[in-house]
Amino acid sequence: MRGFRSPHLLDIASLGRQDILQVLDAAEVFFEVSRRPVRKVPTLRGKTVINLFYEASTRTRTSFEIAAKRLSADAVNMSVSTSSVSKGESLYDTCKTLEAMHPDLVIIRHQASGAPHYVASKLRCGVVNAGDGMHAHPTQALLDAFTIRRAKGTLEGLSIAIVGDIAHSRVARSNAVLLRSFGCDVRVVGPRTLVPPRFAEAFDVRAFDRLEPALEGADVVMCLRIQRERLSAALLPSLREYSRTFGIGAAQLALAKPDAIVMHPGPMNRGVEISAEVADGPRSVVLDQVEAGVAVRMAVLYLLAGEAERPGVEAEGAA
Amino acid sequence: MRGFRSPHLLDIASLGRQDILQVLDAAEVFFEVSRRPVRKVPTLRGKTVINLFYEASTRTRTSFEIAAKRLSADAVNMSVSTSSVSKGESLYDTCKTLEAMHPDLVIIRHQASGAPHYVASKLRCGVVNAGDGMHAHPTQALLDAFTIRRAKGTLEGLSIAIVGDIAHSRVARSNAVLLRSFGCDVRVVGPRTLVPPRFAEAFDVRAFDRLEPALEGADVVMCLRIQRERLSAALLPSLREYSRTFGIGAAQLALAKPDAIVMHPGPMNRGVEISAEVADGPRSVVLDQVEAGVAVRMAVLYLLAGEAERPGVEAEGAA
Amino acid sequence: MRGFRSPHLLDIASLGRQDILQVLDAAEVFFEVSRRPVRKVPTLRGKTVINLFYEASTRTRTSFEIAAKRLSADAVNMSVSTSSVSKGESLYDTCKTLEAMHPDLVIIRHQASGAPHYVASKLRCGVVNAGDGMHAHPTQALLDAFTIRRAKGTLEGLSIAIVGDIAHSRVARSNAVLLRSFGCDVRVVGPRTLVPPRFAEAFDVRAFDRLEPALEGADVVMCLRIQRERLSAALLPSLREYSRTFGIGAAQLALAKPDAIVMHPGPMNRGVEISAEVADGPRSVVLDQVEAGVAVRMAVLYLLAGEAERPGVEAEGAA
Repeated sequence: MRGFRSPHLLDIASLGRQDILQVLDAAEVFFEVSRRPVRKVPTLRGKTVINLFYEASTRTRTSFEIAAKRLSADAVNMSVSTSSVSKGESLYDTCKTLEAMHPDLVIIRHQASGAPHYVASKLRCGVVNAGDGMHAHPTQALLDAFTIRRAKGTLEGLSIAIVGDIAHSRVARSNAVLLRSFGCDVRVVGPRTLVPPRFAEAFDVRAFDRLEPALEGADVVMCLRIQRERLSAALLPSLREYSRTFGIGAAQLALAKPDAIVMHPGPMNRGVEISAEVADGPRSVVLDQVEAGVAVRMAVLYLLAGEAERPGVEAEGAA
Repeated sequence: MRGFRSPHLLDIASLGRQDILQVLDAAEVFFEVSRRPVRKVPTLRGKTVINLFYEASTRTRTSFEIAAKRLSADAVNMSVSTSSVSKGESLYDTCKTLEAMHPDLVIIRHQASGAPHYVASKLRCGVVNAGDGMHAHPTQALLDAFTIRRAKGTLEGLSIAIVGDIAHSRVARSNAVLLRSFGCDVRVVGPRTLVPPRFAEAFDVRAFDRLEPALEGADVVMCLRIQRERLSAALLPSLREYSRTFGIGAAQLALAKPDAIVMHPGPMNRGVEISAEVADGPRSVVLDQVEAGVAVRMAVLYLLAGEAERPGVEAEGAA
Repeated sequence: MRGFRSPHLLDIASLGRQDILQVLDAAEVFFEVSRRPVRKVPTLRGKTVINLFYEASTRTRTSFEIAAKRLSADAVNMSVSTSSVSKGESLYDTCKTLEAMHPDLVIIRHQASGAPHYVASKLRCGVVNAGDGMHAHPTQALLDAFTIRRAKGTLEGLSIAIVGDIAHSRVARSNAVLLRSFGCDVRVVGPRTLVPPRFAEAFDVRAFDRLEPALEGADVVMCLRIQRERLSAALLPSLREYSRTFGIGAAQLALAKPDAIVMHPGPMNRGVEISAEVADGPRSVVLDQVEAGVAVRMAVLYLLAGEAERPGVEAEGAA
């Protein structure tokens, strides 16, 4: 609606540049809402948003819940551990059941790549992908783009290095698609075990196995979280070894442009993929990303569930 | 209040026909609320509804939570795994503690039959039974009745076959009581190990151990969920055997009336007690039941916690 | 603000007598709100309150959540079991992340003494300590003071016996500090293994290892919960032995003043630290404490997050 090609937000690849810019522009307005003393607008009053999380997540679930509540929507949380999923109900039946309760949006996080697409194909209500397996995390890419645009003034033609476990990262995939559509020079870098040869081709990015060429001239250094399960899978020798080779500290950051920003989707392993000095330093925009997350998710919920004739961002008066 | 014999909804047996019809009639109005663009009425603004769930449940807890929120009540969830129950506090103390916080309603699901009655005898606030052991699940029976009435135009004098694990089913018990009070011909059918001889007498229904006579001429075929723990208890030989003998597929459905509807309280074991073809077929009202659930629960919350002088179902204006 | 020395509520020691009285006086007003038919005021509309609980708790989390909702704040729950804490994120990063979402208040319960102070030192938003390790539980002490003042008409100069596991009790510590600031004669009593010699000195109270002298002339008998893990730590011989020596039954209560009240922070081990007869008897104010809890927490949230120009306790009109 209003430029979105579908009533869902499933991945970045389904969006056009105009869709992306529309989200970012709407997010600019909502960004201010969260900074007001009264952090709430009546935009989605009477709408029902269900957070259906098959994977635990502090920041993403909380970010969506706060976004929904600041839009005055009714937010309902369902997590797998307390749901009938443990009774063996299929994803299809769970979703059809939810749909019959007339939610306006179902926000789903699922360990299986493609689960949100499957769900969206079965439901009449809107579906937002909050992260599916290794496939996509579109609101993360949108909040990253929002953060980059605020820091750099534009998304066009930037040089961006994504560092870490590229192979397993839905964050890397969604960011690569988004940034390429704005003509960015996207470099992915990490241990060869974690940077698949086909990734560069599939996403039209450049792959590296050493930090130096990847960071040279970069406007943005985007660190990815190292999952400890990669160690047991023998994809990494040790965290210490990883940190020494691909961790972003002050020396590594010096390889990028002098005004390069450093990003991380969180939660950070300080001392592994990012040093505490850099994480807390003046070029870190890690917390800006979190703040952007609420604004971008408000924008997404608004664009998918809002009604054209309703006011979007007027302040709510005291009752 | 308003025809209810008690401030609680504990079981169907405590309701009269007029009470039941009052719930169903109120639910018709609330049914439309969930289909509006703005799915919310101010009816229970300033009321507090606590969902106290000692058993996990996706659909029932979510259904009650959505019902409460669409009535503008404040809904608070408490599940056993995160509660002080694990510290050994008694049900009595937990409930008295909650009562002191001035909820208007406590919705309780408990594995012990009779727990909601005990709680209601101790509390001053209203109590809604959301399923207790093998005893009762009154809102399920009410939403089933709502669904049947919408499909058949009446509840009076229908023939209804309830198929499956009758012995352990609170759904069967609550439905039997409700439907018998409307003069329905209620037949219960399942393996002899799961259809207790005394059930038919106690609930004034007819018992069968073969599908054919039970389904003959039925207006409604109500499947029950098979719990896998019945296998380990040696009450069932195998799911395959159960499915072959008592599963409802197209051939079995043909034994009922040509316009018979098929119901299931969910979550379904597709291929066990119901075939996918039937579950998704034109005579399935499984999702209608879910939709009815929100409406019926809104009606129950309204009748138990609402105030006569407050408007029930006026649309909420945009703030 | 408004007399609070800090934007946080971390412990009682940081409050002055005027701060405490201010909370109690505000709580008197909010106490009535929960007894109205419409239990809600618009005071904190548009404010975001996050319940960050690293320890499970029924009553405290629910009490804070109800308090927030009755003030019309948006309340978001985060419990450790469903959060990224299990991914190893530090408390610092979790809190900075939350802060970036612009909550107005973070309410934190943590097993580590001092965690809320640490958090408050890092955040710009207000922090409320909902219990940290063995250190402090300031809202418990405030609700106890509210309950005592309502029962006795004053806090000044009362004799108060705190009975049980003094060593490990944040409730005992916070109550001792508060009550001593009002000149109360505070006696702590329990097995020598659970009443540290330095406690009496540190908190300027009198320590006993026998009930009789501790209860003599007491206006208030405050029982503490016995944690079963004290048994495995060999700090207690048996619950039966504890109950015989330090449990409060009718005979023990007779040692105190004839109009003495009995308190317990809950959840109670009936028959261990308190007999059922006393717990449910006319001198028990255990449920008054729970009721006071919501009122006191509304007052704290209001004083920390409210704005001077907003009305505090006007009834919310039907929309």
